[in-house]
Amino acid sequence: MKKLLSAFFVLAAVVLHAQQITSPDKNLVLTFGLSAKGEPTYALTYKNKPVIKTSKLGIDLKEGADMLEGFTVDKTAQSSFDETWSPVWGEEKTICNHYNELLVTLSQKAEKGRYINVRFKLFNDGLGFRYEFPEQKELTYFVIKEEKTQFAMAGDHKAFWLPGDYDTQEYSTVTSKLSEVRAKMKDAVTPNASQQTFSPTGLQTPLMLKSDNGLYINIHEAALIDYSCMSLNLDDKNMVLESWLTPDAIGDKGYMQAPTQSPWRTIVVSDKAPDILQSRMILNLNEPTKYKDVSWIKPIKYVGVWWEMITGKSSWAYNDLTSVKLGETDYSKTKPNGKHAANTAHVKEYIDFAAKHGFDAVLVEGWNEGWEDWFGKSKEFVFDFVTPYPDFDVKELHRYAASKGVKMMMHHETSGAAANYERHMDKAYQFMVDNGYNSVKSGYVGDIIPRGEFHYSQSMINHYLYAIKKAAEYKIMVNAHEAVRPTGLSRTYPNLIGNEAARGTEYEAFGGNNADHTTILPFTRLMGGPMDYTPGIFETKVSVYNPDNNSFVHTTLVKQLALYVTMYSPLQMAADLPETYNKHLDAFQFIKDVAVDWDDTYVLEAEPGDYITIARKAKGKNEWFVGAITDENARTAKITFEYLPKGKTYLATVYADGKDADYVKNPKSYAIKTIKVNSKTKLDQKLATGGGAAISIKEEVKK
Amino acid sequence: MKKLLSAFFVLAAVVLHAQQITSPDKNLVLTFGLSAKGEPTYALTYKNKPVIKTSKLGIDLKEGADMLEGFTVDKTAQSSFDETWSPVWGEEKTICNHYNELLVTLSQKAEKGRYINVRFKLFNDGLGFRYEFPEQKELTYFVIKEEKTQFAMAGDHKAFWLPGDYDTQEYSTVTSKLSEVRAKMKDAVTPNASQQTFSPTGLQTPLMLKSDNGLYINIHEAALIDYSCMSLNLDDKNMVLESWLTPDAIGDKGYMQAPTQSPWRTIVVSDKAPDILQSRMILNLNEPTKYKDVSWIKPIKYVGVWWEMITGKSSWAYNDLTSVKLGETDYSKTKPNGKHAANTAHVKEYIDFAAKHGFDAVLVEGWNEGWEDWFGKSKEFVFDFVTPYPDFDVKELHRYAASKGVKMMMHHETSGAAANYERHMDKAYQFMVDNGYNSVKSGYVGDIIPRGEFHYSQSMINHYLYAIKKAAEYKIMVNAHEAVRPTGLSRTYPNLIGNEAARGTEYEAFGGNNADHTTILPFTRLMGGPMDYTPGIFETKVSVYNPDNNSFVHTTLVKQLALYVTMYSPLQMAADLPETYNKHLDAFQFIKDVAVDWDDTYVLEAEPGDYITIARKAKGKNEWFVGAITDENARTAKITFEYLPKGKTYLATVYADGKDADYVKNPKSYAIKTIKVNSKTKLDQKLATGGGAAISIKEEVKK
Repeated sequence: MKKLLSAFFVLAAVVLHAQQITSPDKNLVLTFGLSAKGEPTYALTYKNKPVIKTSKLGIDLKEGADMLEGFTVDKTAQSSFDETWSPVWGEEKTICNHYNELLVTLSQKAEKGRYINVRFKLFNDGLGFRYEFPEQKELTYFVIKEEKTQFAMAGDHKAFWLPGDYDTQEYSTVTSKLSEVRAKMKDAVTPNASQQTFSPTGLQTPLMLKSDNGLYINIHEAALIDYSCMSLNLDDKNMVLESWLTPDAIGDKGYMQAPTQSPWRTIVVSDKAPDILQSRMILNLNEPTKYKDVSWIKPIKYVGVWWEMITGKSSWAYNDLTSVKLGETDYSKTKPNGKHAANTAHVKEYIDFAAKHGFDAVLVEGWNEGWEDWFGKSKEFVFDFVTPYPDFDVKELHRYAASKGVKMMMHHETSGAAANYERHMDKAYQFMVDNGYNSVKSGYVGDIIPRGEFHYSQSMINHYLYAIKKAAEYKIMVNAHEAVRPTGLSRTYPNLIGNEAARGTEYEAFGGNNADHTTILPFTRLMGGPMDYTPGIFETKVSVYNPDNNSFVHTTLVKQLALYVTMYSPLQMAADLPETYNKHLDAFQFIKDVAVDWDDTYVLEAEPGDYITIARKAKGKNEWFVGAITDENARTAKITFEYLPKGKTYLATVYADGKDADYVKNPKSYAIKTIKVNSKTKLDQKLATGGGAAISIKEEVKK
Repeated sequence: MKKLLSAFFVLAAVVLHAQQITSPDKNLVLTFGLSAKGEPTYALTYKNKPVIKTSKLGIDLKEGADMLEGFTVDKTAQSSFDETWSPVWGEEKTICNHYNELLVTLSQKAEKGRYINVRFKLFNDGLGFRYEFPEQKELTYFVIKEEKTQFAMAGDHKAFWLPGDYDTQEYSTVTSKLSEVRAKMKDAVTPNASQQTFSPTGLQTPLMLKSDNGLYINIHEAALIDYSCMSLNLDDKNMVLESWLTPDAIGDKGYMQAPTQSPWRTIVVSDKAPDILQSRMILNLNEPTKYKDVSWIKPIKYVGVWWEMITGKSSWAYNDLTSVKLGETDYSKTKPNGKHAANTAHVKEYIDFAAKHGFDAVLVEGWNEGWEDWFGKSKEFVFDFVTPYPDFDVKELHRYAASKGVKMMMHHETSGAAANYERHMDKAYQFMVDNGYNSVKSGYVGDIIPRGEFHYSQSMINHYLYAIKKAAEYKIMVNAHEAVRPTGLSRTYPNLIGNEAARGTEYEAFGGNNADHTTILPFTRLMGGPMDYTPGIFETKVSVYNPDNNSFVHTTLVKQLALYVTMYSPLQMAADLPETYNKHLDAFQFIKDVAVDWDDTYVLEAEPGDYITIARKAKGKNEWFVGAITDENARTAKITFEYLPKGKTYLATVYADGKDADYVKNPKSYAIKTIKVNSKTKLDQKLATGGGAAISIKEEVKK
């Protein structure tokens, strides 16, 4: 307590009008204040250790006086909130939303008393705060030049970072100290179909940090609605991160109309890494859903005509023309290239496979006219989303799939031509409804049209939400790839069941992902929402499918199984080809069994960049699943079972790396065994280099 | 002939591979050639006088080698074409399309034989030519950096010009020599809601010119489709005009996919001014319509709730809030401002007036939520096009109007937020169909959203056509204000029945139009298509409606009548208020009688900037109408009647300026008399300063 008081007085000495709140468990302390110049500031400590040193808040406007200084505090209000709510789908059946709130109203005398609010919500797992702009005479329309929210770091933390970019999130994570970002940036910016860095020390969020004194700190945003997506720019002299918004085509960073607000800036904190993964703060900061009927929203396990094109074995395109014009090119008169995977007979094979193994849906990419010249041409009328190739029989495949209890999953690649997508969207969604599709994977590969806008500009943030809301009118679930990384919007819009928005499994076929890639992603990308990571690759050598492609998946086969547990998603793909699964049906059984919706989640052990071990209970069933993964270092996972009801015995089928497994040299070596476990069992499970372990647990049925 | 041959040899000496064609009547001679550097050139003479001196052609590309030089002629082809066709509506029942054509195929050896076509069509009234980009291995996708089409003038011509601008066409025409453009530009660029000049000698098209040796020359474009709108930049040292396209948000000037083509660049020529107005070349250069059913497309005479807001007497807005949010602001709970003209009772008065006097439709602006803050805020979700104000009963007004045989005319002000309009367009058009509307006036007041695009960028050209084509699906006619000036597209899309795209009658209430304004517009703005000029203002002193507005209409009352004949449009508004018309029903009779669709048109006399006298025969009726207008100079119009069938007598009702009429001091002085005329009659009709005369002619019915 003494320490707390002295810390308070120290802070109070340098800031005026200091206000303070604590988290419900009192571990976190937020201090708000004003500098001598009237600049709003905040600071955050966790168990008396600094998380955020005194940092400035404010907004720089395009015209007129800024919202940066000259503030006085008009009033403050403190309150508390405590509820439990149930998501439509998620890692838990119920989520606890408990915080203490501080609402500060600030005004600028020099601006005729123009006032704003800053609202702080302090949870046990972290802090969320946002700016609010109430409607008033002195404030209706304003244009943001830059947001100036600082996050002053208490040290040269270890960081798991991606280069800040207006157009792509698909870089490999770099692990380094903050002071090394500048030197490592050049190599980190690998080529992408659409990219735009902005600073030699620019970083994306979610940003994961670890301090020397053992604090895990994650910085991101929640409820990104009608605002520009935030990146961070690092002042690597002072170790201060500052918000850096995405501009529009003319360089402005936000068109605002009061009353309105910024998204929540989120800082998740703990001294235990698993707490970061168990934080639901970002969801809690989003609004509850207003959807009345959510019965049409269901998690999906699917297969798809996709990996065979990603590897280069097949093609999306129907023929080899270099240029087509939709509505003018008569495809029936062109010569098929013989490699088009999305043909009726071949898709039926996938449907048969899905039906046989209990999958919900089959995704088909390359089903529609336009793939011959879709990429890299800034072509506007690139797809119409409703015209199939001559060899893809929409109605027959709908009938066939339905007869087998399988859904077809639609694919809407937009090629970044968002305006074109909007022109066709109603027809495209109606086409889906008319032909039995209830879910769509959308994509935004390539530079955005309207030209000059970026993937994370305010206009595109609005576009993505427009697509989700309109989809809900048609009872369609959306899985948006290359869209902005999620910020918990699925609470409000639960038909947003997935995003890619990071470097996914496809990159294993484009040179490979780092061995530690998926030990980082839950600490970064997944903080804002689930990822359609599309794991399940059993044939890790891509050259088996395409002799010209020497990429390989940087995991063992078993680690691919574990990913179904460690990479939470309500949308899970078994991404490999049926012919490969048929060779390993014993291992494939785990993918068939694993749930995609959960009653509860237990992060048993985790360290970003090194390992993760998670157990989950399937929703509404007495089944549990455990996934353990490691990076390039072999290790022994410490798997415990305290979450199993006491006094019962369970059968655990353990899918393990073989003794000689090695993600480079011997990835497909695995062993499956069944053991009995109960709540007291402790299992030391060896994981190979780049390996993992997967366990499915069910009650022992006594005869 | 000798002169022609020597001219040819002179040209041939300086250009290689000279090709020549003549117009059917041989007055115009086009010469195509290549410079020593392989730059394509063309030149045009009329009756041996130079119209266009040898001028370069070509396209500058963003990437790779340009299409400017290094060409050789692969082949040429000459042909002729002669047809008569009937427009759905127009100044004539039939139009003659007769030209000689030269098609030149040029290739660049250095670019692996990449080839383009230049196609010249030479009519009796002028030259049209365009670039064509056939699909080939060396040319599919390309981005235009600038088109480099020159129009080398043979002298320092008199020009009737507007400042070149990417966003507005609403400047007052400046009449000066080309050499004076630079000095006069600053004063010419008057303020506008959205504007962007690009050069101190930039000019818009249509551009009207008159040479010292009596040639009338008009430069414009035809069939502007999927291309950037062309302005001209004047090199005022050499008197060379060069094409200057409108950029997009990132500075590019055209995203192209072969096979494709540029619009036609048009040069209308004559030594008689009336021939310029009688030219139908721009329509002839457009494609015939593919619409199968055009029965729903009909010319419209209308009144509207509009001028009372333009003058400031009433408001578009329902209340006086400074900021509203559609779907959130509950209008029924706000305090009406008491000046909202678009209310049910008041609109019924207009409907009554329309029904009583035989008008087809009533336009209502300000009927829908959003007018409180629609302007100047770059607000994106500014209108939804379907939600009426609380005092505007859509269904009741539909019923009432229908019961009286009157149509309601819809208004879609977009505020330049084109992307927002597209999001709502299907719903908006369906709402029209559901509520009995078959025509819409659309508007684009303010800067464009997507931000950074301009009103005349390629993306907006595509948007305007998208709106027209989609309207046709709903059998809706479109009258687009602030959209790009027309280029004859109405031939292909006859539901485009109007544009504003110039300084219209509304500016009479914003300070006034020049007294010669409408003696110029037919030679400039109207060359590409009709204008919804909305004349018919009888109360020329705006202060009568709004004491705070001292603007006055710069014409006499009778000149307003004449405009219904001299300003061709299939869409004609009687723009003043019913209460004013009721005071002058005798003069109003002309507006009631005047046709809006024509069998034939006769330009009796005309001089750009000075006077126009036109006679027209109503479509399918034995009625003729004459309009004569002058500028600030009083004059005597020489009105003849040779177009009347011989041997019959006709009754001509002559609406004339009073003896003491004066557009400033005594605008409302007029006299109406009926006289008998026949085909031999010659009428010297006095026009006051800023005045006119209007005549309606019908057969004498003998008892």
